[in-house]
Amino acid sequence: MIKLSTSDPAFGRAFTTLVNARREADADVARDVRTIVASVRDEGDAALAAFTKKFDHHDLNETGWRIEKSEWLAAYEGLDPALRDALNLAAERITAYHEKQRPSDSDTTDAAGVRLGARWNAIQAAGIYIPGGRAAYPSSVLMNAIPARVAGVERIAMVTPTPNGEINPLVLAAAHIAGVTEMWRIGGAQAIAALAYGTGRIAPVDVITGPGNAWVAEAKRQLYGVVGIDMVAGPSEIVVVADGQNDANWIAADLLSQSEHDPTSQSILFTDDAAFAQRVADAVDLQIGTLSTAQTARTAWDANGAIIVTASLEEALPLVDRLAPEHLELACDNPQALFDRVRHAGSVFMGRHTPEAIGDYVAGPNHVLPTGRRARFASGLSVLDFMKRTSFLQLDPASLAAIGPAAVALAEAEGLPAHARSVALRL
Amino acid sequence: MIKLSTSDPAFGRAFTTLVNARREADADVARDVRTIVASVRDEGDAALAAFTKKFDHHDLNETGWRIEKSEWLAAYEGLDPALRDALNLAAERITAYHEKQRPSDSDTTDAAGVRLGARWNAIQAAGIYIPGGRAAYPSSVLMNAIPARVAGVERIAMVTPTPNGEINPLVLAAAHIAGVTEMWRIGGAQAIAALAYGTGRIAPVDVITGPGNAWVAEAKRQLYGVVGIDMVAGPSEIVVVADGQNDANWIAADLLSQSEHDPTSQSILFTDDAAFAQRVADAVDLQIGTLSTAQTARTAWDANGAIIVTASLEEALPLVDRLAPEHLELACDNPQALFDRVRHAGSVFMGRHTPEAIGDYVAGPNHVLPTGRRARFASGLSVLDFMKRTSFLQLDPASLAAIGPAAVALAEAEGLPAHARSVALRL
Repeated sequence: MIKLSTSDPAFGRAFTTLVNARREADADVARDVRTIVASVRDEGDAALAAFTKKFDHHDLNETGWRIEKSEWLAAYEGLDPALRDALNLAAERITAYHEKQRPSDSDTTDAAGVRLGARWNAIQAAGIYIPGGRAAYPSSVLMNAIPARVAGVERIAMVTPTPNGEINPLVLAAAHIAGVTEMWRIGGAQAIAALAYGTGRIAPVDVITGPGNAWVAEAKRQLYGVVGIDMVAGPSEIVVVADGQNDANWIAADLLSQSEHDPTSQSILFTDDAAFAQRVADAVDLQIGTLSTAQTARTAWDANGAIIVTASLEEALPLVDRLAPEHLELACDNPQALFDRVRHAGSVFMGRHTPEAIGDYVAGPNHVLPTGRRARFASGLSVLDFMKRTSFLQLDPASLAAIGPAAVALAEAEGLPAHARSVALRL
Repeated sequence: MIKLSTSDPAFGRAFTTLVNARREADADVARDVRTIVASVRDEGDAALAAFTKKFDHHDLNETGWRIEKSEWLAAYEGLDPALRDALNLAAERITAYHEKQRPSDSDTTDAAGVRLGARWNAIQAAGIYIPGGRAAYPSSVLMNAIPARVAGVERIAMVTPTPNGEINPLVLAAAHIAGVTEMWRIGGAQAIAALAYGTGRIAPVDVITGPGNAWVAEAKRQLYGVVGIDMVAGPSEIVVVADGQNDANWIAADLLSQSEHDPTSQSILFTDDAAFAQRVADAVDLQIGTLSTAQTARTAWDANGAIIVTASLEEALPLVDRLAPEHLELACDNPQALFDRVRHAGSVFMGRHTPEAIGDYVAGPNHVLPTGRRARFASGLSVLDFMKRTSFLQLDPASLAAIGPAAVALAEAEGLPAHARSVALRL
C-alpha cells in the first residue's frame, strides 16, 4: 500500500504512476489463445475434448458434455433455504432493475414526409461464461443471464469448466433461477471458441459475456467481431472517497472487499482527514489476518492499495475521474453533491450505508462493470448488450423529390455514379 | 453473379455457401499491424512520421502535422453552392435523427427504500478516421462526427491520410460543418495507434470510429479495450427483396450502388418473379459499362452478386435473416408486412421509392452499419457509441436492513468474507 498526499510536491508524478500502472495479463497468452481458437474452429468437438482433458483433467465422453436441467433443479432444491431465498431475492431485484433498460422503438414522419425510425430486437443466442473452481460465483450467473433473458434472448448457453469433473451446486441453482437454457461442461479459451464458431454438438451464439481468467478474456478479445462480447475485463477495483466521520472499520472492510478478489485487484481511499486515513490503514491491517482470503487480500493490498490524503473531498474528484474506477463509494453526508461532479465511474455507491458489496449481489444494477480506466468509454453490462437496433426509412415520390437531389449531388461529388443513378432514376 | 432458385434441390447447400463466404482480409495483416501499433506506442511522433513517409510519401514536418481550421473554412467557402447546400441539408437531417437517440437517465426509489439509477455522460474525446484517396467521402465525416457532437463530446479529433500531401476539399468542408475540433494529416494503422495511445503531439482519445482499409480495421480490432471502437467493419452489402412490379432499371442501379464500392462488396436480389430476375440481370449488364466505377462494380458483381428466385417474397425473409445484411430494401407495395418478419438487418429501406443511397447521404439514419452478418448482434453507429452509463445506488439503514442479510448470505457462500463483513458491520 502506498500513502500519498496531494500536498506533497511529488504527488503529481506519483499519482500518474498509479493511474498508468498496468495490472493486466500479457502477450504470451495471446499466442496460446490463437492456437486454441484455431484448433476448435477447425476440429470442433475433438479439439474441445482434448483441451478439456489437458486443462480440466476429465474426459467429456465419460463425465458428459452437458450438465442436464435435472441436475440444476436438484441443486436448487437441495440448497439451504436461506441461501435459496437470497438467490431468489437477488434474481428478482436484478430482473426489476434490468427491465427498465429495455429500449423504445421510434417511428416518425418528418416535415419532408420521410418516415424514419429504429426498431430493437433481441439477439437469438447468448453464451455465458462462468469460471469454475474458486471463482465460481452464482452471482455472476444471475448478472449475466438475467439481462439476456430480460432482453428476450431465446437461447442462453452457459459454459463452465468442471476441474476434475466437480461442479458448484450454487452455480447450478443460479442457472436454474436465471433462465439459462443449456449448460456445457467446458471452460477456458476453448469454450469461448466453441461458442463463437459452434461445433458439432454446440450451436454458435451471437454474443458472449461473463468473467474469466486471462485466457478467457483474450479469447473473447480475439473473437470480437465474429461474435459480440460484453467487454475486455481486467482486475476489479474500488475507489472510496470518505470524510473523517466514517467508521474506519466499515471503510477498511470495503477496501478489503476488492482486495480479496484477486492478487491484482486495486483498492484506493481518498480522504480529507489524515488521522482517519491512519485509522483505516490500521483497521485494514487488523482485519486482513482474520479473513479466509487473507493471502490474496494481503498481496493485493500491499501491491495495489493506496491511501491518498486530500485537502478536501472535492479535490479528490478530478483524480477519481482520471482513475475512472469500476466502483466508487462516496461515504459522506451529501454524496449527491460529489456525484454531480464525477464523470467517469462504472458504478457509484452513495452515502455511509451503501457498501459496494450490496451491489455485487442484491441491489439490482449489474456487477459486470468496466475496469482498467474503461469507464471513460464503456458501461456496465445491460439489456442493450443482448439487443441490436435496425434503422429504417420509407420515402414516397414527394419526399424523395424533396431530399433526393441533394443525395444525387453528394454521390456524384464522391465519384459514386450508381449511387447517384439509383436516386436520379426515381426523381 | 450466381443465379439460384429456392425450388432447386441443391439450393440449401448453395445458399449456405453464400452465407458463409468470407470476403474479409486475413492474418498477414494482423502481424504487420502489431508491429506498427507497438512502434507508435513506444516511439510516438517519430514512428508516426516514419510510417507516413513510407506509406503516404510525404514528410509531416514539411507538409505540417495538423490541417488548420482556416483550411477547412476556406474549403467550405470555396465549395460549389449546390454542393454546400447538399452537405448542410445532410448535416441538419443527420443531426435531427441522432438527437432522438440521446438516452434518458433514471433515478428511482423502490419499495425497499433503495435508491437506484443510471446516469449517462458523453465521453471526453472521440477519434474519427477518414480514408484518403478514392474513398475520401464527406458523408463519412458527417456520419461519424455528428453523433459524437450530439452526444456532447468536447474533442473530436479527425485523422485522414493525405497521400503525397493531397487533401480532398469536400472532406475538409464536411469537417467544418460536422463540428470536428482538430484534424491530423495521418492515416493507416499508425493513425489508429496514435489516437489510442496518444503521442507527444496528439492527445489520446476514448473512442475511435470511422471506415478504413484492412489495416485500419485490424488496428481498431487490436486496440479495442484500450479505447472503445464502433465495430469491426467489412465490405458493404445490399439485399433487395423485390416483386415483379418494380422497374428493373431502378433495382439494377440499387444493386450496383453497392457493387461500385469495392471489389469485395456484395449485392443480392430476391424476387418471386423469374422474368423480372432476368430483366434485372440484363439491366445490370447494360448499366455497368456506363459507370466510371465499372471496373470495381463488374468485379464485385461477378464475384459476389446473386439473384435468387423464390416462390414468394415471404419465403425470402428467413433467408435474409441468415444473411443479416447491412442494407435491406423491401421494394413492394406493403413493405411493412415484410419488415415485421425481419429480425436481422442493419438498416431497412421500405417501398419502391426508397433507394439505399438516400440513406447514405441525406435521410438521417447513420450509414455506418454492421456488415458480415454482424447485424445478428450489432447496431449502426449512434449517439450511444459516444456515451457511457454510470449506475448508482443509495441505501439508508432501513433499506440496508431489508436486503443486506441476503448479500451477507451470498457473499459467505461465495467464500468472500470481506464482502460479507462490509455489509454485516453496517447491519
